Amino acid sequence: MRTKLIEKKPKEKIIEERTKDKVLKIVPLGGLEEVGRNMTYFEYGDDIIIVDMGLGFPEAETMPGVDFVVPNIESLKNKKEKIRGIFITHGHYDHIGAIPYLIEQIGNPPIYATPLSRGIILRRQEDFPYAPKLEIYEFNKKEYKKINVGVFEVEWFHVNHNIPDSVGFVIRTPVGNVLHTGDFKIDFTPMCDLPADLTRIVELSKDITLLMADSTNADQPGHVISEREIMKNLEEIFKEAPRRIFASTFASLIERIQQLIWLSEKYNRKVVIDGYTMKMNTEVAKALGYLKVERFTLISPEEALKLDPSRVTVICTGAQGEDNSVLMRIASGDHKYFKIQPQDTVIFSSSVVPGNERSVQMLKDSLYRQGARVFHYQMMDIHASGHAFREDLKLLISIVKPKYFMPIHGHYFMLKQAGEIAKSLGYSDDQIIIASNGQVIEMDESGVRLLDKKEPAGYVFVDGLGVGDVGEVVLRDRQVMSQDGIFVIVVVIDSQTGRLRTSPDIISRGFVYLRESQELLKEVRALIKKIVAKSVNQNTPWPLINEDFIKNNIKEELGEFLFKKTHRRPMLIPVIIQV
Amino acid sequence: MRTKLIEKKPKEKIIEERTKDKVLKIVPLGGLEEVGRNMTYFEYGDDIIIVDMGLGFPEAETMPGVDFVVPNIESLKNKKEKIRGIFITHGHYDHIGAIPYLIEQIGNPPIYATPLSRGIILRRQEDFPYAPKLEIYEFNKKEYKKINVGVFEVEWFHVNHNIPDSVGFVIRTPVGNVLHTGDFKIDFTPMCDLPADLTRIVELSKDITLLMADSTNADQPGHVISEREIMKNLEEIFKEAPRRIFASTFASLIERIQQLIWLSEKYNRKVVIDGYTMKMNTEVAKALGYLKVERFTLISPEEALKLDPSRVTVICTGAQGEDNSVLMRIASGDHKYFKIQPQDTVIFSSSVVPGNERSVQMLKDSLYRQGARVFHYQMMDIHASGHAFREDLKLLISIVKPKYFMPIHGHYFMLKQAGEIAKSLGYSDDQIIIASNGQVIEMDESGVRLLDKKEPAGYVFVDGLGVGDVGEVVLRDRQVMSQDGIFVIVVVIDSQTGRLRTSPDIISRGFVYLRESQELLKEVRALIKKIVAKSVNQNTPWPLINEDFIKNNIKEELGEFLFKKTHRRPMLIPVIIQV
Repeated sequence: MRTKLIEKKPKEKIIEERTKDKVLKIVPLGGLEEVGRNMTYFEYGDDIIIVDMGLGFPEAETMPGVDFVVPNIESLKNKKEKIRGIFITHGHYDHIGAIPYLIEQIGNPPIYATPLSRGIILRRQEDFPYAPKLEIYEFNKKEYKKINVGVFEVEWFHVNHNIPDSVGFVIRTPVGNVLHTGDFKIDFTPMCDLPADLTRIVELSKDITLLMADSTNADQPGHVISEREIMKNLEEIFKEAPRRIFASTFASLIERIQQLIWLSEKYNRKVVIDGYTMKMNTEVAKALGYLKVERFTLISPEEALKLDPSRVTVICTGAQGEDNSVLMRIASGDHKYFKIQPQDTVIFSSSVVPGNERSVQMLKDSLYRQGARVFHYQMMDIHASGHAFREDLKLLISIVKPKYFMPIHGHYFMLKQAGEIAKSLGYSDDQIIIASNGQVIEMDESGVRLLDKKEPAGYVFVDGLGVGDVGEVVLRDRQVMSQDGIFVIVVVIDSQTGRLRTSPDIISRGFVYLRESQELLKEVRALIKKIVAKSVNQNTPWPLINEDFIKNNIKEELGEFLFKKTHRRPMLIPVIIQV
Repeated sequence: MRTKLIEKKPKEKIIEERTKDKVLKIVPLGGLEEVGRNMTYFEYGDDIIIVDMGLGFPEAETMPGVDFVVPNIESLKNKKEKIRGIFITHGHYDHIGAIPYLIEQIGNPPIYATPLSRGIILRRQEDFPYAPKLEIYEFNKKEYKKINVGVFEVEWFHVNHNIPDSVGFVIRTPVGNVLHTGDFKIDFTPMCDLPADLTRIVELSKDITLLMADSTNADQPGHVISEREIMKNLEEIFKEAPRRIFASTFASLIERIQQLIWLSEKYNRKVVIDGYTMKMNTEVAKALGYLKVERFTLISPEEALKLDPSRVTVICTGAQGEDNSVLMRIASGDHKYFKIQPQDTVIFSSSVVPGNERSVQMLKDSLYRQGARVFHYQMMDIHASGHAFREDLKLLISIVKPKYFMPIHGHYFMLKQAGEIAKSLGYSDDQIIIASNGQVIEMDESGVRLLDKKEPAGYVFVDGLGVGDVGEVVLRDRQVMSQDGIFVIVVVIDSQTGRLRTSPDIISRGFVYLRESQELLKEVRALIKKIVAKSVNQNTPWPLINEDFIKNNIKEELGEFLFKKTHRRPMLIPVIIQV
């Protein structure tokens, strides 16, 4: 029995709670003015519930070496005992991925999720051996009930997204009701999911104070194209493909993976799934019945090598041109099993995440050069976004008819664009809440207000095992070193004479290639000798050796010298050793 | 008299040369399978001419710290005396920018250019005090003549591009004729330029063996939109702008700058030009009469501050979201004179170079947040590409009717797309030349062939004053350090006892923040002591101290320890000092 009994509270208790505290605090900890890292909490009196706990991806140039970015949960740490539960909208990492990193710090509260989301969360938790055991209660997107947690009453409704089992929530509180869409789109003819449940949304929308709506695509005109169209276009490619098909997409796009499997089965192809996370997700989805695969469809790479190329589809990650992804390794000839052969077909069935355009272009070039037939979403509709377009948003706002509208998910610009959509439907400026991460929104019976007050919401970096231990200083050092390298000078000074004991040791990395810079090195050594002589009175016995003074002089004079010679500014690290 | 007398060669000499060597070698050194770094040379017997000498921009992730990428001129170095001239198609840096870095290495041959290109090249050369004086001969896009250099006869024709005075060339050789478009588009109604001279192209195209055509936009359907349309849309923005207008574009987009100046004059605004290169380019263009500006239009930032905001336009660089660009500094509050005020208008009048999408998004967000009205090319047509679209390419191929077609400029994928266009016009595979950088193309009376032979054409990096001194090793070190930082361990060993003289010095940058990692540090120190003790027999007098052995042991064991503790792999640098 995985579903927790839904507790019914006596009415009196609810009324009592209503009088205790009259304000609902809504705090978005991520997902605003950015893509990813979605997490919001709702606080009323002694109760807190959280919607989603996702991770974000670092910006390569300003966050070098960082693996992920997670929400800042500083403001929740001293309120652990108030947290009644985490409600998960769907199983994408930008909505669940921070759980293993953060949940223990907030007291490991129970999680509420649909079966697929639950399966993915549990499977992922296995990769973190020291992370706590999770308590996850399941609710079903087709059997609607109510979940009472503390003062909150939570109901859900099914929406479309690029992964099945996606829902949004209606959160009822004593001072008003919030409808949170999660990531959503509306697809009347999805391929392997039910259409978004508009009837249910209408039923739940009798009295919505605040609509929080996914605005990732608020600048895209029209409606999102249906998955049925995508399927048709993919089928055209399958029909004509003479040899192997390498179909790349996001690891979590279960719907697309399903389409590719169905088409492979129809066109008599066996399927290899390649990529750690994609494999993991498909295993979970298959075990839970969300992915329908015939008995002998899935094969191993070894088996694929024995088949005629026209009978093989490889579904894999790497559509973003990531280093070390499956498709990248195939393209560069580093994959253990597969190489590109002329007339192989490569499908990029995903949009390009901003920042990855150049890598994707390089990858496509490499594939073309090897003779592959390449299809990507700019050439034909073989990818549909998972997020509502402008007209979908209009439809939603029109049926929910909230008193206030708050765009969520997406850059500030998108939030503003979504605000403009609401305006076009008659909403006034003070009915539109454009918040920043951490900014507190208050709701009481008089309405919804955006406060100036901010809870901590800055980036928390995950780097290896460290969560939050990489800060500004470390990142700045990485940036400096990546620009002009480092230059370490180890100076051994005889404390009796104040003179150098040996020629200084010089270690240079990422600055100039030392073997080809012997002349420069000689000049540097001579200069350091001069600087040390100048910085220490070498003519007294037991001279005063002021290490900081010497270090500063080296940094200054050597820095200037190297800049003059090379126009580069490596990070200079003088080390003084007295013997 | 800046125009060199065009030498007429006696016919006999040409015939004699024809018999000497029967093959024309065409070597593209850059601009293929990439954007930028355009340079191609043509070699016939004892004569070589070069078309363009441009730079490219580094890929942030794989080329950290690199300023520019320039063509590899290895194969020209021992043929200096054969080089008769460099022909410049237009004044953009991706076509002229490598001149100061490379021209001396190939013997400083004469350059042939239109007046604006010449002006920009000469002005830029002033920034390189040690670069040689250039010999530049001018030709006029409206007065067509022939230039004979060595065995080659070169003629030119006017094309449209985002900078005036752009031309393509017809290069006549004893074994066939090449038409090289340079960067081009066809605009029947340009704003401050003549339309591309199609009549001239037809006249010159009687007998073209090979068409080398700019294919940067070969995947874009239709025709490039005319600058007249852009002007109309920009005017809509000017009409409504309540306060200052910050109009950002590429520093070299003289045509767009002209449009913005005209609109400012029409709407009673003064203009500040801000950004080093943009200022330089506009000064040259103005001095040569390519930029028409009324007498009191241009003002200084100080003067602008005294005017009513509705009377000021600032034309600046930074539409790519580059760090330290003018617009970025304005947005971040770091600009000396200007800050964004609510209701200021910001125009992004340029496309986004792949790789810059995320920075541009951040910049736009920041501007929106400060209350600016932001207009960019995805919202309306306020930027037209400078490169032909599919239908423009069809038009060109149809009027030139070359025997062979060779797409140039752009990623491999674009070259292939351009090839497909030629195929749709009836060309066969062996009439379409898709080459790589460095790959040799041979032309003789029997036709054009793509050889397997390759001249060196790898990236040459410019970093500060160094050209070509940053290689794979240096870049790889920079990448490693930018991911997980460095960890330097300085160990002082007493050579009499083999023991540590002091606790090891540890320098960590970009790895963990040391002040918050005292515990880790303590463990590291203890571990190093243990490693040294294990690596040296400390119980003999004058023990054998094998520095490499100790270093390797530290690298191995400490590396493993740090990875276990942090899941990071900083660059480990042990330094052993014996005293």
